[in-house]
Order: sequence, then structure tokens, then C-alpha cells
Amino acid sequence: MQSRVGIGVVGYGYWGPNLVRNFVSNQSARVVSMSDLDPEKRAACERLYPGVATTGCYEDLLKDPSIDAIAIATPVRTHYELALSALRAGKHVLVEKPLAPSAEMVRRLIDEADRRGLTLMVDHTFLYTPAVQKIRELVQKDELGDIYYYDSTRSSLGLFQSDVNVIWDLAVHDLSIIQYILNEDPVAVSATGSCHVTGTPENMAHITLFFDSKCVAHVSVNWLSPIKVRQTFVGGSKKMIVYDDLEPSEKIKVYDKGITLSGLSENAHQLRIGYRAGDMWAPHISAREALQTEIEHFLDCVRTGKSSLSNGISGLRVVEVLEAASRSIAERGRPVNLKQEPRLRKAAI
Amino acid sequence: MQSRVGIGVVGYGYWGPNLVRNFVSNQSARVVSMSDLDPEKRAACERLYPGVATTGCYEDLLKDPSIDAIAIATPVRTHYELALSALRAGKHVLVEKPLAPSAEMVRRLIDEADRRGLTLMVDHTFLYTPAVQKIRELVQKDELGDIYYYDSTRSSLGLFQSDVNVIWDLAVHDLSIIQYILNEDPVAVSATGSCHVTGTPENMAHITLFFDSKCVAHVSVNWLSPIKVRQTFVGGSKKMIVYDDLEPSEKIKVYDKGITLSGLSENAHQLRIGYRAGDMWAPHISAREALQTEIEHFLDCVRTGKSSLSNGISGLRVVEVLEAASRSIAERGRPVNLKQEPRLRKAAI
Amino acid sequence: MQSRVGIGVVGYGYWGPNLVRNFVSNQSARVVSMSDLDPEKRAACERLYPGVATTGCYEDLLKDPSIDAIAIATPVRTHYELALSALRAGKHVLVEKPLAPSAEMVRRLIDEADRRGLTLMVDHTFLYTPAVQKIRELVQKDELGDIYYYDSTRSSLGLFQSDVNVIWDLAVHDLSIIQYILNEDPVAVSATGSCHVTGTPENMAHITLFFDSKCVAHVSVNWLSPIKVRQTFVGGSKKMIVYDDLEPSEKIKVYDKGITLSGLSENAHQLRIGYRAGDMWAPHISAREALQTEIEHFLDCVRTGKSSLSNGISGLRVVEVLEAASRSIAERGRPVNLKQEPRLRKAAI
Amino acid sequence: MQSRVGIGVVGYGYWGPNLVRNFVSNQSARVVSMSDLDPEKRAACERLYPGVATTGCYEDLLKDPSIDAIAIATPVRTHYELALSALRAGKHVLVEKPLAPSAEMVRRLIDEADRRGLTLMVDHTFLYTPAVQKIRELVQKDELGDIYYYDSTRSSLGLFQSDVNVIWDLAVHDLSIIQYILNEDPVAVSATGSCHVTGTPENMAHITLFFDSKCVAHVSVNWLSPIKVRQTFVGGSKKMIVYDDLEPSEKIKVYDKGITLSGLSENAHQLRIGYRAGDMWAPHISAREALQTEIEHFLDCVRTGKSSLSNGISGLRVVEVLEAASRSIAERGRPVNLKQEPRLRKAAI
Repeated sequence: MQSRVGIGVVGYGYWGPNLVRNFVSNQSARVVSMSDLDPEKRAACERLYPGVATTGCYEDLLKDPSIDAIAIATPVRTHYELALSALRAGKHVLVEKPLAPSAEMVRRLIDEADRRGLTLMVDHTFLYTPAVQKIRELVQKDELGDIYYYDSTRSSLGLFQSDVNVIWDLAVHDLSIIQYILNEDPVAVSATGSCHVTGTPENMAHITLFFDSKCVAHVSVNWLSPIKVRQTFVGGSKKMIVYDDLEPSEKIKVYDKGITLSGLSENAHQLRIGYRAGDMWAPHISAREALQTEIEHFLDCVRTGKSSLSNGISGLRVVEVLEAASRSIAERGRPVNLKQEPRLRKAAI
Repeated sequence: MQSRVGIGVVGYGYWGPNLVRNFVSNQSARVVSMSDLDPEKRAACERLYPGVATTGCYEDLLKDPSIDAIAIATPVRTHYELALSALRAGKHVLVEKPLAPSAEMVRRLIDEADRRGLTLMVDHTFLYTPAVQKIRELVQKDELGDIYYYDSTRSSLGLFQSDVNVIWDLAVHDLSIIQYILNEDPVAVSATGSCHVTGTPENMAHITLFFDSKCVAHVSVNWLSPIKVRQTFVGGSKKMIVYDDLEPSEKIKVYDKGITLSGLSENAHQLRIGYRAGDMWAPHISAREALQTEIEHFLDCVRTGKSSLSNGISGLRVVEVLEAASRSIAERGRPVNLKQEPRLRKAAI
Repeated sequence: MQSRVGIGVVGYGYWGPNLVRNFVSNQSARVVSMSDLDPEKRAACERLYPGVATTGCYEDLLKDPSIDAIAIATPVRTHYELALSALRAGKHVLVEKPLAPSAEMVRRLIDEADRRGLTLMVDHTFLYTPAVQKIRELVQKDELGDIYYYDSTRSSLGLFQSDVNVIWDLAVHDLSIIQYILNEDPVAVSATGSCHVTGTPENMAHITLFFDSKCVAHVSVNWLSPIKVRQTFVGGSKKMIVYDDLEPSEKIKVYDKGITLSGLSENAHQLRIGYRAGDMWAPHISAREALQTEIEHFLDCVRTGKSSLSNGISGLRVVEVLEAASRSIAERGRPVNLKQEPRLRKAAI
Repeated sequence: MQSRVGIGVVGYGYWGPNLVRNFVSNQSARVVSMSDLDPEKRAACERLYPGVATTGCYEDLLKDPSIDAIAIATPVRTHYELALSALRAGKHVLVEKPLAPSAEMVRRLIDEADRRGLTLMVDHTFLYTPAVQKIRELVQKDELGDIYYYDSTRSSLGLFQSDVNVIWDLAVHDLSIIQYILNEDPVAVSATGSCHVTGTPENMAHITLFFDSKCVAHVSVNWLSPIKVRQTFVGGSKKMIVYDDLEPSEKIKVYDKGITLSGLSENAHQLRIGYRAGDMWAPHISAREALQTEIEHFLDCVRTGKSSLSNGISGLRVVEVLEAASRSIAERGRPVNLKQEPRLRKAAI
């Protein structure tokens, strides 16, 4: 491999420009070429980055030997084919979330990457935010005690996607965060969803994840909200967190609050529940852009062959939950069990 | 009936003092007597209201001919017996929410009241708040267009109840509001809930209500939240409301926002969705205490025999949904159908 | 003195009912009598407190030997005469802020109280709030480092007073807080003010207090603001505080932020200023009502003869600044020097 | 003049990149060259804009006949010399605020531009924000009634400037807005300021502007605040505005609130003041970048010769107030009169 990792980017719509900008500014990468079907988008890229070649033909990237890795930022329905052909061309791959439209497809991508010894990574951007990393750190250090719940709302007057519904677009973020910060996997899911615009996918949904422990997770997503909300509560036996991603600073507030129990355990009615109200603390959170951290991590994985924090298995678990949630939505909340597999190890970052 | 309605109040815990205070200050009522088992609470009442007799024996109120109506503010498990004996003693009854612990019990109370021509009213306080009345007015005037959703969060580091779980304590408010402001009844419910403290009822729950129309309602309740949240979104095809009950003023914000559709209806993929971002408007909301309005309304019903806005039927519908939600919680979200009955007429207020 | 301190209250307008309620609930006091010229207000008091005698004649309180102390909650222009006659009748006195309409009058009241060995205390309520006491504690412990500034805004669509302008009504709170939390007295004041309603006093003003150190204080007050604001910034060399009295909890936020200096001191242009951004911390603040604490303190002073935290001298310093600020307002901000007197010792609470 | 206006930009520090980006994206302009003493900044510009020449020598821009206009974004102390030499070289000039370090210098620049028939414009960016333009529109339409006050706070943990104090850096924004939205000029100023870091200019200041009418303006600025504040209150006899520039949307809230007067005018004490609490309304504000609008306006002035909204006279009035405020700060708030000149006409935009 040459000294800089040669990068090809596919798709220059909403997210692609962010990928190009961050790869361009990374000293370990060189953006060789960008592919998009739309000539206007190619022209926009050329104006900003005269050093980056552009093409309307994705295959050009696959054939280019100076390209070591391909970043895919196209509609979800194209992820599988684009990623598979990239892997088959011997390229490392970074795919925008979700990794593919079905768990079966994700499994085939994982197999292909494993067989060829290539890096397959999914762009679960939130895992690389300083805020989510701080929450994980607090959970790992047992600052919160036993985790009781993760309860998140992610809504706005948003971009209706044509090929996926709101859970594949927004809840995917929370599912990746839940997998990252909690120490156990969900065992079942119940979800409800609604479609308010005929001919479009569900634009509003609520998902409950069940765990073997007392922990529960709930995710509320909505493309049709008058105001933007990005708020997550994490409740623990010792402390509780409110994480508001829209706060310019103080994104995370840690509350030293909770309940205390006393009394005879034999008789629930005699249990005395007390309330503990203590200080609130907002740790300083770095303002570093998540995608910058993520791309460093991707390049590091490509160079060293180490497994990514958001590797194929990580992307698979998220898609499995999305599939189960979709089945539950179709049956108005009927619970769907999730296969329990050995807990995946997590790469440190 | 004498010129002032004679009132007896049962229970002087959390809510009882508010009832006494509001009945005392109402010119059409006279608080004759208050009953509580706890001598300290009776003493507290005597200090503030030397003109109100107190007793440890509820039967004293039933026997007192100067008492026309009894207000019940005791634990839920006692509502049925106390209300039934009051009706049998010929007294009008106002019961704290929820009306009784089961729909069957509520039906018997309704029958008893009907047979005797007495007023039976449930204390769904939120229906009497200026904010909820304004939302209903906006919905009735079709300001919002078709209602797409009602999505509410009601949480705090709250009082764990020993005899009911969090939906019977908190979701009951939203269920009564939904019934009041929407023009249709739910047809099914899916709910999930969690208990984080062994030996106590569920302290966290999420409920989805399905309707025959595109409308959906979701209620999130939590007794174990680090911060208090009382926030409701009502989305319509024309406008959307954010109602935050913790705002000292500007409780209701009406957003002239939404989506616009264009394109060929034959092909969903060619549907073009546009976004409409307009002004926000916060109507002035009176600061009148809801319980003051509610008690006026109760006294009016007692005097005139007219049906209450929050009458027995209204209380029954709410308890039916609570029962169905409880069954769904026990089965991890499995949907439970609600019997469809003819839409109840609503009393104007 | 009998076992309970006998209390007389003068004035049952806005603040008087709070005084009566808190004295009534205090075990060391007995409210003997309340005086107000308005029969309706006396009737309101009688309804709530049948054990408290009422009178339209203030002199009745002075003559009553069972009254040990008198609390005065009347318009400012009456404070001096009412307090003086109470002291002359041998009663301890608690006066609503400001203590009197001029420093000269305050001095005479102090003399009278001293001569008779009576407690003279001014109702600077904010000094008794848990929030202000926490700020003082943090300053005393040198948590903030050198205090750079106190900058406060206190505004609302407020009650226009007829006999005093907005600084005598609102800025008086900040002046008492400044005196309490800072370790030095101001040496000069510049103030500007405006009257927007012909025939009424100034309804908007800005006051700057100068100190011998680098510290500066600024107070902005306004009776004609569309929204209520109660926000105070305290900046120090080590940490900075934002105190928002309208926050239901988290009234005080302590920011571990500031600047760092490096470089050659000989050349200011080569000074390198860096920024330090650290955690924020919101200490738990008790929800205890300030007036409850204050009245305990008053009763303690009356019984033991010890000097109050908000004694006559404390009230005098505040009135001296108000007088100087009024002179400065009349001359569009011309600075007015304050007499420097030896720093008064502060009573602990 | 050729079809596109040839642009030279001086200074590529904090603001320069924004100027280059906006001129580059404007179809009526062509950025010919950028000058900065720092080779690293020139390199940064070259990477992003390979079509823009760079130079370390400002004179190169003056000599270049393809450059019609020069935009200056350098430290304040250099504005005068750079602008003067550009005008003398026959170039139109856009200067970052404030226009020059003294009113005398500004007058000379105005004379030079007038003599040569060149456009001289100062970059008072806020005048071109949709929010400030909406406020001006509401004032012009008499929606607010008589303007009672403008009261603004602009603070953060900010960039200490080495050559100007905080009023020349931050208050300058408010002074330009005040001039733009009010219909009269101030007649006197009182200001106080403090320096908390030895060897640096004042980092905190409060300015009061007096007008012949009842209107008053107050500006509070601070480089040493723990949190960022950008909040302006505009009070009128009919309505009041709260403008918070940090709000992502709903930057402007218009309150239909105020006071009402009744009673006998002969006796101020009998004036009855009532309160009027009505709706709040947040007009939709476009998200267009102010600098984009401003640069269009600058190019239009250059092409047509029409006078700019933020022309030299506009910049002069602001600098005159800054000079007067600086004198007042040096004398602890002593009021300084402003020369009254005929009200300048305002260009429409």
C-alpha cells in the first residue's frame, strides 16, 4: 500500500460532501475520485476540490488501482450491491448507515470482507461523537450503577426518505448507541409505527427493546415534528443522564438523583421509597467533529487490519433489530424475539 | 336543596387539601365536613379551616343530611367502595382519577348514579386547564387540519404509588385529554412497561393507541426521570402544536409548519415532498386554576342535573384503555383491541 | 418575655399575607394581631386565620402588651413613621425592604433601636434564599477566585409602584446580595434611568457600582419587560456562576471556565490569552422558602439580642447606594462617590 | 467595468474566509486575488480556491487593474491606511467593522470616496440578517408603537482583541442596529467599563444612549462570560420584541403585552396602571446568510453607484458613539453629548 490510503467516494448528495471534506483534510488519506450520477453534483465537487477526479460511472472507481478504499453514501437500497462489488474488487469499504436493507445481505457482506481480509465498516457516526463516548465511559466506570433504561426521542420536520421508513433512517442511530453503551443485547422488540402521507413509508414510530435484565430501551422517531428534538435519557440505579444533542455545549448532564429503598422486603406495601436529589454535573465535551474521529479510525483499521468499533457485526446487530422492529410494526406492536448470540467484543477507540 | 351545596371531602393527603381549598372559596358550596383516618391530617385541616368539621369515620359524612355531595381523594383501591356507599346514601360524587380500579366497577358506579339520578364525576383535572381547552378549541375549529398524532411525555422523579402502576397514575391524564380533544375513539392499544424496583408496580411505560383513521397516539410515562417533563406534541395536516405544561406562560405553541405534496399519485417514488415553514404563535392562556373551573362545573351539574364533561362514561373509557394497556404490558406489547362503542357526546364547558 | 414571641403585622397587601403565613407556622411565634386600613383585607385575613385579631388602627398594635415585635409591610413612604413609633413603643421591628426612603431616616431608626436595645431588621429576603447563601459560601471558600464582576438583570411586566421608582423596588434586592456576597463595599456609582409613562417614576434603570479592586457590579432593572428575567452572572478569576432564580431547580450553575495568560508582561501586545473550558456543576439547592429561614432568624435575634444578618446597618448601606444612584440618574450617569466606611462585620446564619 | 466585479480581499484570519467564500459563490463577482502576510493562511486559501491568486504584498492588489473593489478584513488599527490607499488607487472599498479607529479618520475616508465617486461601505453584518430586517420592518410599520427602549446583551468567553476594547468589538453591532431600526439619533451617552486582565483593553462595558424622545438604549458587552448571550429586548408602547440570535429558529418573538393607563391625569398618584397580556408571535425568519445579502448589496452599489445602507456616514455615526462612549468610560459614566446632525437618510434594501 502506498503511503496515503487512496479513497474513492460514491454519492455526493447529503452526506457525501462531508465524507470528501473529512478525507481531504486527513493527512493519511488521498481522495482519488468521486462518483455520482448527477453532473451538477460532480461539478460542485470539482469546484471545491480540483484535485479530486469525478466520474458518473461507479465502475471507474473499482478499476482504479490507486484506490484502496471506497466510501459509500448512496440510498440504502443500493448499499448491498455497491459494497459487494467494491469488496470483490479488493477495496476496503465504509458504508453509510444502515449497512444494508436486510440482515441476510449484511451477512453476505461480512463473509465477503472476511474471506478477503478487507475492512468493512458502517458509518454509525454517533459512536464517534465525544458525547456518546463520554456516556459509554461513564457507564463502563459504573458511574450510573445498574442501567434501568435508555429512552430517546429523535424528531424533526425531516427529510422523508423514499426507500426506507423512519426507523431505518433515524432509529438506527439509537440502536447503534444502545449497542455501544450497554453491556447486553436486547432479546425482544415491540414497535408501532404510522404513515401519515399516503404512498410514503412510516414517518413516525416507537420502539421498545427488552433485555434479560431490568433494563429497557425505548426510541421515538418522527419525521413530522414541528421542532427538532434530539434528547436521550439514560437512567441508572446510582445516577441518571440527560443527553441533548442540540445543546451547543453541556450536551450531557449527569444527575446525582434517584430513589432509596428501605423497609421489609417481604411486604411490598411496606417498602418505603425515598428520593435522593443531589448535584447535577455537565462534563466538558470536546467539540471535535465525529466524522473526523471516525475517518481516522477507518484509516487505522485499513492500515493495520484491526477490527472496527462499527464493524460488520455491529452493523448486523442493528439491522437485525430494524428487521424485527419492522415486523412488529406490521403487527401493531406484537413482540418479536431476537436471536441471542454471544456478546460481541467491542473494539476500544 | 339548600342554597349552598353541602360538601364532604374524604382524604386529606396530596390532593384533598386542594379540593377543600377550592370548595371553601367557591360561593356556591359549603364544606361541611372532612374525613381522614390520620389525626394529624385532621388537625392540619382544622387549623386552616376552623369552620369545617373533621372526623375519622367516613360513615359520618354519609349520615349527615347537610352534605349533598362527596369528593373522594383517597388511594385508588378504595375509590369503588367509597363512591358506591356515597351514591347509596344519596350523595353526588366527585372521584379523584382514575374513577375505579376496573371498568366493571366503573360500570356499576355509573348504573348506581343513573338509577338514583345523581351526579357522578371523575376528577380529570387537565380537561379544565385553559391550555387543554385551547387545544380542543383549535382542533374543533379545524385549525390543525386532520390530526396525525398526539405524542406525550409525562415524567419526573415521582411519587411511586403502592396500589397502581405508573399508567394508572400518569397516563390517565393523557388518556382523558386524548378523549377530550380528538374526535374519535381508539380501537386498539399496544403498551410496554418496566419495573425497576422489586416489589413495586411498573414505574415506566409507553402506550400506543391505534385509531381507524391515520391518527395515532403515544404516551410515555416515567416515575424515575431525573428531570420533570410535561410535553405534548399534536401534529395535524395543517398545523402542529407543542404544549409544554411546565412553561410558566406560552404553554401552547402553534406552528404553521408541515409538508406539501406534489407529483404523480400513481407512483409513490415520484411523490415530491416539500416542507412548509411558517410562523409560530403562542396564544395567551389564562392562568386560572383548573380545579376552580372544575368545581364550578361539578356544582353546576349537581344543581342542574346536567351531564358532566368528565362524567362516568368519560371515566369508563379511560379505565377501559388502562385495562387494555395493562394486559398489553403483561404481554410485552401484544396489541389489545378495544370495544368500539358509539362515540359519546361531549358536554360543552 | 412570654414563651412565644407575640407578633403584630402591619399591612396585608402583596407581602403581608406571606409574613402572616410564615409567622403563624413558626412554633416560636404567635401572631396576635394584624392591622390594615382596608376592611376587605382584614376580612380575608380573618377567614384564613380566625385566631388572629384584626384592626384598622395601627396604634392598637403599639398599645398591646402581648405584642413583642411588629412586622411592617406597607408602602415605602410609611416605613419610617411606622417603624419609629413601633420602636418607641418598645417593639422589635422587621421592615419590608427598603428600610426607609432616605439614609437619614434609616440612621434615626438605627439610633432609636440601639438606644432601646431592640432588634431592627430589614426584610432583604434574597439573603435568606438557599441559592444566594450557596453563592456566598462559594465566594467565601474562594471557589471563584478574585471576583471580577456581578452582573444582574431583574425585569418583568411588573407592578409599577407609585411612591418609589424601579431601583428602590427591584435593584434593592441586588444591592443587598452584592453587600452580602462580596468582601468589599462600592466606592462610587453611575446610573441611568428612564420613565416611559408620564406621571410615574422611572420604570427602567441600569446601575454600575465601582469598587477599589478590579471588581465591578452592574444591575439592570425594568418594570416594562415582555418576559420575566431574574438572571445574575458572577465572574471570578477561577470560576464563574450563572444564577437564574426562575429555574425550578438548578438555579446555580458553576462554570469551570476562564482565561489563561502567558507571555511577556512587559509588552501587552505579546500577552497570549488562552481559554479554559471545563465542566459545569449545578449544586443541589434546597427548596426551603426564604421567608421561613428569615423569620426564624428574626425570632432568634429578638430572643437573644444578637445582631441580624440584615440589620439596620445592612439596610443603611443599601439605602445609601439607592440615594447615590438616584442622584446619578438625575444627571444622566454622572458618577457619585460613596462614603467609605469601615467594612461592617457580617452575622453568620 | 467588465461583466463581473473584480474583487481583492485583504486578510484571511477570522472573517476573511467568509468574505472569500461569499464573493466566490456570487455570480456577479470574481475573486482575483487575496493578500495576507501569513504564508500558511495563503496556502489554506490556495487549497480551497485554486483559482484565486494570493500574495503577501497588499500593494499587488492596488496595482492590479482587474480588481475593481477591495474588501478589508484586518485588525482595526490598519483599516484607515489600507482603505485610504485602496480608494486612492481607484478601488471601491468594503471594510470590516468598525470602519476606522477614529471619527476623524472615517471622515477623511468618506471625503476621499466622495471625491473619487467610489463606494465606501462598512461591514455592519447584522443589518443584513433577516432577523434585524424583520425588526426594522415591524418598527417601520408601527407595529410596536412608540419605541421605549432597546436593551441588548452580547457576551461570551470571547476573543480578547489586542488593539480595541470590547465596545469597539461587540457594541459596534448594536450601535449599527440601533441606528438602523430607530427613527432618531442619540444625543448623549453614558458608559462604564472594566478591565479585569492587566495589560489588556476593557473586556466588559455597559453603555446607555439617550435620545430626545422617551426612548433609551442600553448595550451590555462582555468578553469574559461563562456562557454566550445574544439577546435584545425592544420595548414599544404597543408591542415588545425579544430577539435571541442564538435561537436556531424563532429568533424573534413579538409580545402583544404592555400597560394600560386610566385615571385622572392631574394626579399621578391616582393613575391606574393595568397590564395587558396577549399572544406571542414568532414570525418565520429566513435562514439566508447575512453576508450573502450584504455582498449582493455591495456589488449592486459598486455597479450602480447608489448609496449603501451601511455607507461611510453610517459607519461614521457608529464610530462617533464609540468615541463618546470611550470618553465616558474613562470618566466612570460621566455623560458625553453627541453632536446632533440632520438625520441621515437610509437606503432601502
